[in-house]
Amino acid sequence: MCAAAQEAWLKANRNHWYNASSLYKEAAATSQHLDAARERLAELLGCDAMRIVFTSGATEANNSLFSHFGDKRCHISAIEHPSVRVPARAEAIPVSADGILDMNHLPLQSDLVSVMAANNESGVIQPWKQIMKTCRDRGIAFHSDATQWIGKLEASELGQCDYLSGSAHKFGGPKGCGFLVLRDEEESWAFLRGGPQENRRRAGTENYPAIEAMVTALEHVTQRLPEMNSAHRDAFVKRVRTFLPNVEVVNEDAPRLWNTVMLVMPRHDNRRWLARLSQAGFAVSTGSACSSGVEGSSVVLQALGTAPDALKRTLRVSGGWDTTLQEWISLADAMREVLSSLDR
Amino acid sequence: MCAAAQEAWLKANRNHWYNASSLYKEAAATSQHLDAARERLAELLGCDAMRIVFTSGATEANNSLFSHFGDKRCHISAIEHPSVRVPARAEAIPVSADGILDMNHLPLQSDLVSVMAANNESGVIQPWKQIMKTCRDRGIAFHSDATQWIGKLEASELGQCDYLSGSAHKFGGPKGCGFLVLRDEEESWAFLRGGPQENRRRAGTENYPAIEAMVTALEHVTQRLPEMNSAHRDAFVKRVRTFLPNVEVVNEDAPRLWNTVMLVMPRHDNRRWLARLSQAGFAVSTGSACSSGVEGSSVVLQALGTAPDALKRTLRVSGGWDTTLQEWISLADAMREVLSSLDR
Repeated sequence: MCAAAQEAWLKANRNHWYNASSLYKEAAATSQHLDAARERLAELLGCDAMRIVFTSGATEANNSLFSHFGDKRCHISAIEHPSVRVPARAEAIPVSADGILDMNHLPLQSDLVSVMAANNESGVIQPWKQIMKTCRDRGIAFHSDATQWIGKLEASELGQCDYLSGSAHKFGGPKGCGFLVLRDEEESWAFLRGGPQENRRRAGTENYPAIEAMVTALEHVTQRLPEMNSAHRDAFVKRVRTFLPNVEVVNEDAPRLWNTVMLVMPRHDNRRWLARLSQAGFAVSTGSACSSGVEGSSVVLQALGTAPDALKRTLRVSGGWDTTLQEWISLADAMREVLSSLDR
Repeated sequence: MCAAAQEAWLKANRNHWYNASSLYKEAAATSQHLDAARERLAELLGCDAMRIVFTSGATEANNSLFSHFGDKRCHISAIEHPSVRVPARAEAIPVSADGILDMNHLPLQSDLVSVMAANNESGVIQPWKQIMKTCRDRGIAFHSDATQWIGKLEASELGQCDYLSGSAHKFGGPKGCGFLVLRDEEESWAFLRGGPQENRRRAGTENYPAIEAMVTALEHVTQRLPEMNSAHRDAFVKRVRTFLPNVEVVNEDAPRLWNTVMLVMPRHDNRRWLARLSQAGFAVSTGSACSSGVEGSSVVLQALGTAPDALKRTLRVSGGWDTTLQEWISLADAMREVLSSLDR
């Protein structure tokens, strides 16, 4: 959580802990700050503030969306995050070998198409604007789970999507806070019921401190986006290849987020890699922590038809906004050490 | 939010911000702290830790419960909080004139009976243990929304309920955090889906900082419960009666929480009372902030068959653990001033 967001949380918790839906003056002030946070987020996303519903995170946002669409006909990409894939009763749209949605398989008719803005494992960026336009031409509502994109790339056009999900802890905000942007300012919504909060669209006492921290984090990180690029990560991959020339970077040639890379190691089980790198002080992942079941069963590689054997050799590495070149290089060097010990 | 809880949140956020479901060592440490928090909450509630599912609050817990029961036959009391009343497709069990559930109307057959432990408006304490026992004899599952009880009264027997809901911000913890206790350690649950968290029963990255703060708050407040009693509140009521002898205390003779009182003022609209008291520095309520629609339509008074006219004259006043006698008396004195100005 970034320092500015933590400061914002503390200040909100101290000065505006009141119930925003009450009527006394301190509650009204809290409600006004909440409305201001909604306007600030709307500005960052390029949408009308009244379309935003604050949630407990992207998982709730995605579950809420597919609950709303119920038995309607939905299509999702084959590489969606489990919080889309599991609640959606939907047909899957395949991706090409480069990990990008195959536009030729976009449905001609559907009630909802959901394609993530950037993938949570490989970092591959999806052509969501093009998909959105095609959907619009066909009269199909378009949702994007932009949880991985927001905070890594400029978000100000995402509000053009009919529906949009995001999660604060992916961009320096607190856990337990996120949002769903609805198609329509007036759209009625009924997932969490039993209270008039969020314009009657999401019951539960408003978590203003977390919301304030979330918006502050996104403002903070958005300012830094112009300096961000993949040079450090790419230097890391280059260095790994000096001792592991056969390491595979998943969807290497596709446009990808600047901070993340999924590797298929030429040998050794990924959990052995992970455990030894962890001992050396590096926190890497075998896949998605949210994947159903055990970490390591990559949804992306399965969608690409990768051999089961390779699924056990994936490593996912992500840097942050402050990760230095030296830190990336140190990880490569640690991998060389781990390789020696595993090969021994 | 109590100081101990805020300190716990900050410490967790600083030292254990990692994804508890990841596999590297810092993640494992976070997961262990999360498990320890679950054990500590279980100890406070008197239940097995594996029955606890952490949620974004009682509203999610209640919605989740009634989603799980779906089309099964459910009964709820006539004075439940809207987060139970709205999502439940249930028959209502009436309350007697004293605001206590009429045991004679408990169903002989049902799949679930849900009765709150203490009411959110009047503070009336329900005989939940007796209701639970009767339900058990009849083979009916029993749920209690104990959101108002926990933190005000000893919670260590509540874990005997088959299902139990609670919310952190009602006992000095953070907003956006709560829990649902399930009947069975092994019970499968699928409200928020798409991730293996909470033993596959609630998807979404674990909000360990908020959970740690919640449990710390409940430990802190539980220690203080023996000193708490209604003497200050009762002195307030007595003083109000010196200038407003006809003020009605809703369900005055029923057992009630020590910190709260719902009044029916003899004259003047409650929003006029509220606005003037707010100007004088007192934050009171006209009803429940969560009631559907505008504040002030008391669910309790409607269930008691109170005349519509009286519904517009209700004021709800709640103190905290640190509210002094002098503060309660000052409120009574402020009400005398407001009355003079309203009568003028």
